[in-house]
Amino acid sequence: MSQFRPAALEADVVVIGGGPAGEVLAGRCAGRGLDTVLVEAELIGGECSYWGCIPSKTLLRPGDVLAAAARVPGAAAAVTGPVDVSAALARRDYMTSHWTDDGQERWLADHGVRLLRGTGRLAGTRRVRVDGGPQLVARRAVVLATGSEAVLPPVPGLADVRPWDNRAATAAKEVPGRLLVLGGGAVGLELAQAFFRLGAADVTVVEAGSRLLPHEEPFAGEEVLAAFEREGIAVHVDTRLAAIGRDGTDGPVHATLSNGQEIIADEVLVAAGRRPRTDDLGLGTVGLRPGRPVKVDDRLRAIGVPGAWLFAVGDCTGLAPLTHMGKYQARIAADVITGRDVRDRASRDAVTRVTFTDPQVCAVGLTAAEALQRGIAVRVIDVGTGDVPGSYVLGDGLQGTTRFVVEEASGVLVGATITGSGVQELLHSAAVVVAAHLSLSELRHAVPAFPTVAEVWLHALEAAGL
Amino acid sequence: MSQFRPAALEADVVVIGGGPAGEVLAGRCAGRGLDTVLVEAELIGGECSYWGCIPSKTLLRPGDVLAAAARVPGAAAAVTGPVDVSAALARRDYMTSHWTDDGQERWLADHGVRLLRGTGRLAGTRRVRVDGGPQLVARRAVVLATGSEAVLPPVPGLADVRPWDNRAATAAKEVPGRLLVLGGGAVGLELAQAFFRLGAADVTVVEAGSRLLPHEEPFAGEEVLAAFEREGIAVHVDTRLAAIGRDGTDGPVHATLSNGQEIIADEVLVAAGRRPRTDDLGLGTVGLRPGRPVKVDDRLRAIGVPGAWLFAVGDCTGLAPLTHMGKYQARIAADVITGRDVRDRASRDAVTRVTFTDPQVCAVGLTAAEALQRGIAVRVIDVGTGDVPGSYVLGDGLQGTTRFVVEEASGVLVGATITGSGVQELLHSAAVVVAAHLSLSELRHAVPAFPTVAEVWLHALEAAGL
Repeated sequence: MSQFRPAALEADVVVIGGGPAGEVLAGRCAGRGLDTVLVEAELIGGECSYWGCIPSKTLLRPGDVLAAAARVPGAAAAVTGPVDVSAALARRDYMTSHWTDDGQERWLADHGVRLLRGTGRLAGTRRVRVDGGPQLVARRAVVLATGSEAVLPPVPGLADVRPWDNRAATAAKEVPGRLLVLGGGAVGLELAQAFFRLGAADVTVVEAGSRLLPHEEPFAGEEVLAAFEREGIAVHVDTRLAAIGRDGTDGPVHATLSNGQEIIADEVLVAAGRRPRTDDLGLGTVGLRPGRPVKVDDRLRAIGVPGAWLFAVGDCTGLAPLTHMGKYQARIAADVITGRDVRDRASRDAVTRVTFTDPQVCAVGLTAAEALQRGIAVRVIDVGTGDVPGSYVLGDGLQGTTRFVVEEASGVLVGATITGSGVQELLHSAAVVVAAHLSLSELRHAVPAFPTVAEVWLHALEAAGL
Repeated sequence: MSQFRPAALEADVVVIGGGPAGEVLAGRCAGRGLDTVLVEAELIGGECSYWGCIPSKTLLRPGDVLAAAARVPGAAAAVTGPVDVSAALARRDYMTSHWTDDGQERWLADHGVRLLRGTGRLAGTRRVRVDGGPQLVARRAVVLATGSEAVLPPVPGLADVRPWDNRAATAAKEVPGRLLVLGGGAVGLELAQAFFRLGAADVTVVEAGSRLLPHEEPFAGEEVLAAFEREGIAVHVDTRLAAIGRDGTDGPVHATLSNGQEIIADEVLVAAGRRPRTDDLGLGTVGLRPGRPVKVDDRLRAIGVPGAWLFAVGDCTGLAPLTHMGKYQARIAADVITGRDVRDRASRDAVTRVTFTDPQVCAVGLTAAEALQRGIAVRVIDVGTGDVPGSYVLGDGLQGTTRFVVEEASGVLVGATITGSGVQELLHSAAVVVAAHLSLSELRHAVPAFPTVAEVWLHALEAAGL
């Protein structure tokens, strides 16, 4: 039932790209009775399921939980072995379904979505051509959900060393002894720590900007840097790759950094940013520029394309390249396509994001600097994530910072950042507060349970005189 | 500075009881310039700090984190040892400051609270007598914060076996080989699992009611029961203690249950409920009945006492015997005493509670049954806590249920229960939603990060057609 029948060249909705955003959108439209076709050339489930969130978080987990145990007197001595690498990699293989998408294909079929395997490209208004094959006509909407891909910086020789991108790294069959990571954003940091804790002896992170996680609050990157150095991961900020080459075909890589340091590595991971996959999407046939993000309005309609038939969701919009934000945009776009009056209120003002390193960096909404850029007068309330009994009972030496960014005039929380170990579930309380535009004073009746880390909220209320 | 000067027999505020609620209230009043006296006969910090939350959560933590590691392929094999009991008990001793309160005394001094060590009792309107000593006159308010104590059920012979209460159990110097726990509420369940995971070979929980955690959603107790039995803790519900006796002075305890079963144990923990510590508080001098909870209005003023000078906070009110709710009431009462117009909006409608067993039971607001009792028409949305990728990446076999209780008419969430392993921080998102009276439709823009357990909220939105 899920295979597209060539005779039916029309559909209500045609979705190009079957990652999380495309899948959610297609499932939601089909569930509401629209004849929906999903076009995908690779694995249904997309980057996230096979080469992104799922394998990276799975690879991080063994080291993370053992580090948590090592902080607990009474548990630390029970952890005697290293991470079992083959079990960890086998688990990763299981979590990625061994890079097969039968399960996802069934999900589409169960949700009434017609699947067409192939590369979809726009071919004018409401038209999508799949490979050299059929041309589809979308009665109601075409939705672009083609995601993003890793960028290779233009360093001479870099391509020749056959560097890893996120795909090669998350699908690695063994742990390199020495790993050089180019890029101190979430992808680079997570994979650096994952491989270090899986047993890579030498891991070095090189970031061109002045700090790790440059888009987050400054203390976030500083805390991750300090933690990495404490556990033995080398970090260079304000540093670029000057030259690189590999000995022979399979020999070690020699890298020279802009600070003069020489690094020898077995593998090089390039995690220096991503670009929307829009260069071969037929954007020119509808008047848009190939290779650029597809800009959208707050109903996810492509700006500059008349007729309100072209939508874009997920990484290809350039809005917030995160799985959950893509899925959110997909829900909003599907609602718009099915006639509901909703707007995207989160993709610009309430983006949630988690860097799953140890310590984690969890954030939602605006940083203090972003608020300033937008001309919003804010006050900042900083409390120690480790300064609540809910942290003490989790073990020794839990640290971190929780920052609340509060609009002066209204008292409304416009952003929050929580750093610390294992705090990812606490973020959603801040996500609710930011998304619902709640003021701190409205939170006094939301009582954090004792002893949980959520008591950082109490410290914030106290600091605000509430 | 913290010791009371006998000459000063007047104060603005006199607080009887220096547990978390009394401390918070005294600190807040003193911080706002009121001359505040705190009267306490035992350790400043109260039951929670020395014989409650802090030691029980500390004793649970080693077993909890090792169980978490055992669920992670790649980490499980690294855990080879049992819990290090002496390290765990030493950590407990550290976390309770070895049952000394110097640190708390400093905290009071730093916050300008005058401390009077002794037993305080009401002695008529605005008057408190401390032991046989000075009589204090409160210019503005007297606040009762005397907490609660364990109840010993009237079973013949039970007192003679010298059973543990929460104090003896949390302060235990060794792990008993065989432990019988009377009571299947949070205290009994937490300590049963703590001692089992610390190495007690035989742990049996006996609950007179038809299920564990009788005040929570029915599935909560059922899931804990199933988990306990899977790991080897025996549980009997609908069962009472029929007879009990100890062999000699230090010999084993023989217990006969109402179902005929015979249990032999080294120690017996009685966790069959608590009562307010109000029997020797001089309540009769102000027209209240000793031994009963001190009923309060939504400004924490004692009902039935004219003049608005007598307040009560924490367990002695009978409202919600939980440290964080006592601290919340203390904040509200201090606000009222210092002239702010605020009301207690949480102690009846938005009580947060966590049973820190594995699986945990986290809840806020009303259960479905409580909503029914109050005549609120609700719909219930149940989703699997383990059915989100955020649970898969944490390990194998994570289960649990998340229930949202939604008022039919308004769509407002009036309660939520989350069961699962290590989900305590997720609760605060529900606490915010319930306390702020948000409807599910207002939550569509609060985007749970992927992959976190917080995506249970998405499943709820989907189930609600949003």
